[in-house]
Amino acid sequence: MTPQDPNFETRVRESFARQQVMSLIGARMVNVGPGLCEIEISARQDLTQQDGFIHAGIVTTILDSCCGYAAYTLMPADSRVLSVEFKVNLLAPAKGEIIRAIAQVKRAGRTLTVCSADAFADETLCATMLATMMCLEPTKK
Amino acid sequence: MTPQDPNFETRVRESFARQQVMSLIGARMVNVGPGLCEIEISARQDLTQQDGFIHAGIVTTILDSCCGYAAYTLMPADSRVLSVEFKVNLLAPAKGEIIRAIAQVKRAGRTLTVCSADAFADETLCATMLATMMCLEPTKK
Amino acid sequence: MTPQDPNFETRVRESFARQQVMSLIGARMVNVGPGLCEIEISARQDLTQQDGFIHAGIVTTILDSCCGYAAYTLMPADSRVLSVEFKVNLLAPAKGEIIRAIAQVKRAGRTLTVCSADAFADETLCATMLATMMCLEPTKK
Amino acid sequence: MTPQDPNFETRVRESFARQQVMSLIGARMVNVGPGLCEIEISARQDLTQQDGFIHAGIVTTILDSCCGYAAYTLMPADSRVLSVEFKVNLLAPAKGEIIRAIAQVKRAGRTLTVCSADAFADETLCATMLATMMCLEPTKK
Repeated sequence: MTPQDPNFETRVRESFARQQVMSLIGARMVNVGPGLCEIEISARQDLTQQDGFIHAGIVTTILDSCCGYAAYTLMPADSRVLSVEFKVNLLAPAKGEIIRAIAQVKRAGRTLTVCSADAFADETLCATMLATMMCLEPTKK
Repeated sequence: MTPQDPNFETRVRESFARQQVMSLIGARMVNVGPGLCEIEISARQDLTQQDGFIHAGIVTTILDSCCGYAAYTLMPADSRVLSVEFKVNLLAPAKGEIIRAIAQVKRAGRTLTVCSADAFADETLCATMLATMMCLEPTKK
Repeated sequence: MTPQDPNFETRVRESFARQQVMSLIGARMVNVGPGLCEIEISARQDLTQQDGFIHAGIVTTILDSCCGYAAYTLMPADSRVLSVEFKVNLLAPAKGEIIRAIAQVKRAGRTLTVCSADAFADETLCATMLATMMCLEPTKK
Repeated sequence: MTPQDPNFETRVRESFARQQVMSLIGARMVNVGPGLCEIEISARQDLTQQDGFIHAGIVTTILDSCCGYAAYTLMPADSRVLSVEFKVNLLAPAKGEIIRAIAQVKRAGRTLTVCSADAFADETLCATMLATMMCLEPTKK
């Protein structure tokens, strides 16, 4: 997969830095490449659900950003990216020290890009996402 | 829909109170009834994505809890509830003062319960979820 | 919901008539209106899965066409409709004499339209779909 | 992945043979192994949608059976398998001579098994599924 924009990494990381919720939950973008992205958080008490595991919505938050930015690496320099929809299966309790989401583009279209992503709680696969992302170009908006 | 547990509301609200992430994002359970639940948050800068709207993952966080607790109202007194999977369509930017999620049970089974939920940003439908929840009974775990 | 194309019903029914698989499975479009569609089949042995119920894929076939045509009622006269993605929950075995799918538009956008649909086996809700449809306009293709 | 039932292949192929809809659409199970399954159809006019491609519902029919049987390879000898839900993204028109679905188990639990599957139209990835399957044991039913 070849990015149209040679400066895709800067563009992606700047957009990620504007996602204020990432600071709130302590998320770091640990890797980004053409059609790929990796985001992680450290487990914290204030991210948990009723049984002490990381809430599925927080796992989804990093999976969604991860898919969005994997897609965004392949989009034009002046575009914006938008989540259309996603589906998540929770496979195991999200317990561990680090929750890491890894996304890759399955198919990049001009308007829509489909991504898949897995989330790991330490070494255990705990969730998987299948998502559709949309490219908004300046002339379309 | 008739709850098996007459004290379902206390049980649901106690479980919600243990979801520490709800405090982090400022979520309130504004309504709960047999097969129904309603959770809302106030918009805040630290919940936003790159364009200043509430992040889809945060909208999903309240949709997921909302579906889980709608399902949990109908489960036995000593059971636990678990998200199996959910799918979310983002229909409009989540911008406004209040984001409110409203869930209802579509079908309650012994093990699996299917719920649908809508999220509104003020008066605008901004997201919709279709989710599967699982009942864990003490003897099963 | 107001169709842009006053002749939407003729356009939808002609497109449905070109779906040859609908003849194979005996599907009828029993109703169509602005943002709405209803398709049914009669149960037949050659549509069954291993336990004698109508196969989930066949139920999905009518749910998908139903969502597509509900969306298509609101699209421009010279457009085409395409399924982007759908999610189906199977709620009860599809057994009965008639399987009927009923779809409605949840949100119609210029490019993407989101629909929900339910399938009933006689009077029993047996499946539910949440789907994204895409409008292809001549100038886009 | 190690099947509990050494005769899983016979059991899976017998169940597949009882899915009468597979005969109707001309589907063959071309491969089955522990946690894996492959089903294909030949393109036919009577399986098409309005533009002459194989209908998304028919592609879903083989994806769903493929996921179900991949899961079923790992289930006990006297169990039954049931589709709980699935999500499909359509990635390219299903046009070609052979449509082949390939499924693998992502996580096998005692009650629920999550599978992913891809469908190829000749060599082109045309659809992808993420599905939840349920194991029904005799004592549970």
